Amino acid sequence: MSAPIEFFFDFSSPYGYLGAQKIDALAARHGRTVDWRPMLLGVVFKQTGGAPLTEIPIKGPYSKRDFERSARFHGIEFKMPPVFPIASQAPSRIVLWAKQRDPAAAARAVKALYRAFFVDGLDISKPDIAAEVAGRAGFDAAAARAAIDDPAIKEALKREVDAAIAAGVFGSPFVIVDGEPFWGTDRFDQIERWLANGGF
Amino acid sequence: MSAPIEFFFDFSSPYGYLGAQKIDALAARHGRTVDWRPMLLGVVFKQTGGAPLTEIPIKGPYSKRDFERSARFHGIEFKMPPVFPIASQAPSRIVLWAKQRDPAAAARAVKALYRAFFVDGLDISKPDIAAEVAGRAGFDAAAARAAIDDPAIKEALKREVDAAIAAGVFGSPFVIVDGEPFWGTDRFDQIERWLANGGF
Repeated sequence: MSAPIEFFFDFSSPYGYLGAQKIDALAARHGRTVDWRPMLLGVVFKQTGGAPLTEIPIKGPYSKRDFERSARFHGIEFKMPPVFPIASQAPSRIVLWAKQRDPAAAARAVKALYRAFFVDGLDISKPDIAAEVAGRAGFDAAAARAAIDDPAIKEALKREVDAAIAAGVFGSPFVIVDGEPFWGTDRFDQIERWLANGGF
Repeated sequence: MSAPIEFFFDFSSPYGYLGAQKIDALAARHGRTVDWRPMLLGVVFKQTGGAPLTEIPIKGPYSKRDFERSARFHGIEFKMPPVFPIASQAPSRIVLWAKQRDPAAAARAVKALYRAFFVDGLDISKPDIAAEVAGRAGFDAAAARAAIDDPAIKEALKREVDAAIAAGVFGSPFVIVDGEPFWGTDRFDQIERWLANGGF
């Protein structure tokens, strides 16, 4: 059994959302599973001097256009959220909580929360909203809400962010396949060939 | 006759080099020609707060790996130049000079100069070296050398950089197709569909 593909992402990242819709099928085509690894781009940006794309002069307006065009290109539903960017602690903690109980459930939590933000425009940075979304996706909403304030889960997310930085993650999505790093949904073509050929 | 595709690029940009090897064939598949538009990313970065990729913490080492891997992916010869990044005034002025005399010759100048930098490792920021490369590509080397110091050509490059910024260009390569902007060689798949379908 080959190692899972590591999929690092931030819940406030449109390209992370797009990649999340495609990574499962990509992995499955090559007999792999996905390890969903939420992280906080805001913390990472402190190391790299990065900033949310939409706040950068000239690049900002292009980015918004590119989010929508890239979604159309990939045939993925997308609507720029009314509140953007958001802090992503609450949904990230729900994913870590879900993952501890059932690794396979992490994907379901990620997709429900991403969809709530990038399709339904809900502000999933709000703990009550994030927990409600988890509830509609089949999780225990009260337990999800409690997980957001659980010191152990908070600590787990901090460790995950540290681990992401240690692994060289600086953007979202960021995929690591057998130690090889790929940044961006626009590297999925390279990931596909890497998995098919064991490198190139 | 449809309008040419505008291909904005900086001579110090590895992704610009990769894109330059592919844009002619892409354009030709859709009955288009390419307008080669050299610009100076250093000036653009003053507007956006950008920096050379290789100088950004964490992102820098990834970028070097991605340049080489992306070149292999596209089957393009590439060797990280010993001096990098470089100032790109000299080769850019040669291209503008060549373009004024013969628009079709611009592509030849671009490719010869890019190859000299990203395959042969020559420091084309040096006027004498850039002119010599142009000479080997079939241009009058002495005239190319004189063009680098020609006030009218210097002025033309400044205007080109201003025009690029006015057009929203913030990276390299940057392609504009009938007013629609695409940043990066990794958007060539979208450009292909845009040209085939007249948008999407």
